[in-house]
Amino acid sequence: MFRKILIANRGEIALRVIRACREMGIRSVIVHSEADRESLPVRLADERICIGPGPSGKSYLNIPNIINAALISNAEAIHPGYGFLSENTSFVEFCKDVNLTFIGPSVEAMQLMGDKVSAREAMAQYGLPTLAGTPVLHTLEEAQQAAREVGFPLMLKAVAGGGGRGIRLVRSMEEFNRVFPIAQNEAREAFRDDGIYLERFVEKARHIEIQVLVDHYGNGVHLGERNCSCQRRNQKVLEEAPSPLLPRELCEEIGMKAIEAVKAIGYRNAGTLEFLVDEQNRYYFMEMNTRLQVEHPVTEYVTGIDLVKEQIRVAAGLPLQLRQEDIKFQGHAIECRITAEDADADFRPQTGTVEAYLPPSGPGVRVDSHLYAGYEIPPHYDSLLAKLIVWADTRDEAIARMQRALDEYTIEGVVTTIPFHKRLLSHKKFIEGDTYTRFIQEEAEALGIS
Amino acid sequence: MFRKILIANRGEIALRVIRACREMGIRSVIVHSEADRESLPVRLADERICIGPGPSGKSYLNIPNIINAALISNAEAIHPGYGFLSENTSFVEFCKDVNLTFIGPSVEAMQLMGDKVSAREAMAQYGLPTLAGTPVLHTLEEAQQAAREVGFPLMLKAVAGGGGRGIRLVRSMEEFNRVFPIAQNEAREAFRDDGIYLERFVEKARHIEIQVLVDHYGNGVHLGERNCSCQRRNQKVLEEAPSPLLPRELCEEIGMKAIEAVKAIGYRNAGTLEFLVDEQNRYYFMEMNTRLQVEHPVTEYVTGIDLVKEQIRVAAGLPLQLRQEDIKFQGHAIECRITAEDADADFRPQTGTVEAYLPPSGPGVRVDSHLYAGYEIPPHYDSLLAKLIVWADTRDEAIARMQRALDEYTIEGVVTTIPFHKRLLSHKKFIEGDTYTRFIQEEAEALGIS
Repeated sequence: MFRKILIANRGEIALRVIRACREMGIRSVIVHSEADRESLPVRLADERICIGPGPSGKSYLNIPNIINAALISNAEAIHPGYGFLSENTSFVEFCKDVNLTFIGPSVEAMQLMGDKVSAREAMAQYGLPTLAGTPVLHTLEEAQQAAREVGFPLMLKAVAGGGGRGIRLVRSMEEFNRVFPIAQNEAREAFRDDGIYLERFVEKARHIEIQVLVDHYGNGVHLGERNCSCQRRNQKVLEEAPSPLLPRELCEEIGMKAIEAVKAIGYRNAGTLEFLVDEQNRYYFMEMNTRLQVEHPVTEYVTGIDLVKEQIRVAAGLPLQLRQEDIKFQGHAIECRITAEDADADFRPQTGTVEAYLPPSGPGVRVDSHLYAGYEIPPHYDSLLAKLIVWADTRDEAIARMQRALDEYTIEGVVTTIPFHKRLLSHKKFIEGDTYTRFIQEEAEALGIS
Repeated sequence: MFRKILIANRGEIALRVIRACREMGIRSVIVHSEADRESLPVRLADERICIGPGPSGKSYLNIPNIINAALISNAEAIHPGYGFLSENTSFVEFCKDVNLTFIGPSVEAMQLMGDKVSAREAMAQYGLPTLAGTPVLHTLEEAQQAAREVGFPLMLKAVAGGGGRGIRLVRSMEEFNRVFPIAQNEAREAFRDDGIYLERFVEKARHIEIQVLVDHYGNGVHLGERNCSCQRRNQKVLEEAPSPLLPRELCEEIGMKAIEAVKAIGYRNAGTLEFLVDEQNRYYFMEMNTRLQVEHPVTEYVTGIDLVKEQIRVAAGLPLQLRQEDIKFQGHAIECRITAEDADADFRPQTGTVEAYLPPSGPGVRVDSHLYAGYEIPPHYDSLLAKLIVWADTRDEAIARMQRALDEYTIEGVVTTIPFHKRLLSHKKFIEGDTYTRFIQEEAEALGIS
């Protein structure tokens, strides 16, 4: 087992990895920006190294500085968390060059899955249904032709996008002609790749994702599904497991097909396959995230499995101790992503100092957060303040517990999305389990965010 | 189901009951002393009624004021928590007289179990092994005779005692002659009953207790055992489930016998049967606590069952939805009782103001506590500040997780037993699971408390 791991991330996910390391008897080194000097993970890690100024490009994306920090501190492995360098193949190559274990999949698997078109082709080859999509498009003319073939409405997607970014719904050719060049420009700037592809738009699609875990010896399991249909502008705001309304056999089938396909491509470590499920319960593989997901605690709650510890064990070359038949699902878990945003003002990002802080607790409540009283929220990073996760025996009880926990949660000094989450959890359709990816947008008025 | 419940308690357990009520859609009314006006449960309850000055006798033990508060607020039921009036039969009678549902067993069951000698006789009759004990003794002469028959060392116990109070280990007749009158006086003052009984002392006894739950229709289940062998002066300081080193079949046998006996006496609602297990794995029923235990979260973690909600449902006359075969035990849970005591100064009680507060969290961590930054600890009550409960797949992982959580826990401004708990969890015997009721006393030096 590793003696020391460097954590190339910040915020709640850095804290999550520190906690796993500490429980495993592994020393943790955190790299941090100047802006994060006073952050909780920096205080709680065993060692800390400042790697640059606040803006991510100069610190959390600064590959040479991070590699140097790992070498100086004699770390043996790097946990990338999510975001930042977690799906950056050059970073993985650099780690390899200096004999640092990257806690994640191989460069090859990451490359294959990083290109959304090649990912889909590979997974189709191994038995996963995919949506009718187009090849990568670069000119407006070929794109128009492709759009006519797919038909409207359609989804326009950046081939190098991910995490909900670089996606647009287009309803007519007129709109398409206007949007395509804009999307190309945005993709070029955001992902350094202006490739765009189109796919059929699925009405009332449920976003279902399967958590998988594979070791270096071909042993793999799926840990069930998460339903992430509550999204705002393609960003998940609430996730749950198991998925309401979907037949258990369907989810089990998707899970088994997913793990088979993932094993077939030689994938290893933790990963997540995202699917859309249409109103007829047909499912389509969309993309794979080759890292830990923000919403992994939902799966941890219903399976009792610690995903970060498993990631570390697999990366250290240990064989997986889990067999598919040992994995039992119990109860229902929900996660609310609490962000520093003002839902009443179009989710405008907020900064400020946390003046008072008291997280909820009691039975079935978990809070993954780097907040503390006195913490000043830096302006440079994404707006996630806390993940509030609850577990209960049934979905109804989990909803009631989440409402109770949201009521208790004290965060003073910063506007958060707690009030929005309370409204979301009270919405009739949510309570019935009838959520789909455009649900929040369609119900904006009822949710008080129009 | 009740629309409104009055909570006749304070601190973490009042908060625990408020949380259950809120999740069940039941309004909560809390009664509180003047000293507790600014406490967290008082802030979080739906309604609050001050019932008197700080000292418990004038508020939390003031039956007329509590009954009046229930009537004024139109509460339909009273949850007594633990301690205070939770095992007071007059209180239960008063509730009955004014048509308030007492959330707990009947007066008769409470009376039967409240007298430790009659409890033992009743349970022996229904198949539970008991320790050779004596009848209730009132004079030194009859006591001396009885002591000779039992033999030394022996335990001297107040018949009306409970919760670890009113118990002494006596090793010789000389010591007995000195201690018996003192114990009588103490029992008279503390429990208004000077009855004493003697029982054989069991060397290296493990304290095992069985959680039971019975409805009004004779349906009952046991929820497994808790090991509460880590005690200091007969007060539990750490509890866990399942019990290390004991054979699973033995615990299952004790559990099944316990639930059968409890059903036979017509007991209902939640209760706990305490047993000693000797070095040969023989077990002896000691007493029954006819209320929720401090350590109930340990059982909640390994079974996934919410005991407070079950108590409320049973009290409302609902049939138990649980069958014995449905109850599955998963993983390992440990609870540390964090108190305002200075372990380095003979556990002297501490007061003060909590200046900074940040509870640990992350996977498998639960904190039941009424603390917050700025809270002033009143001098009138017991010293429990927080229950830190962890769950993990194995006992070793649970210990590592507890150490991690204790490391993270920030309580500034008050001396607590957190450092003592870290030492206890690091002790070789504890790690091996080899704990017994006098373990902490015998290892005082190694634990840094001698």
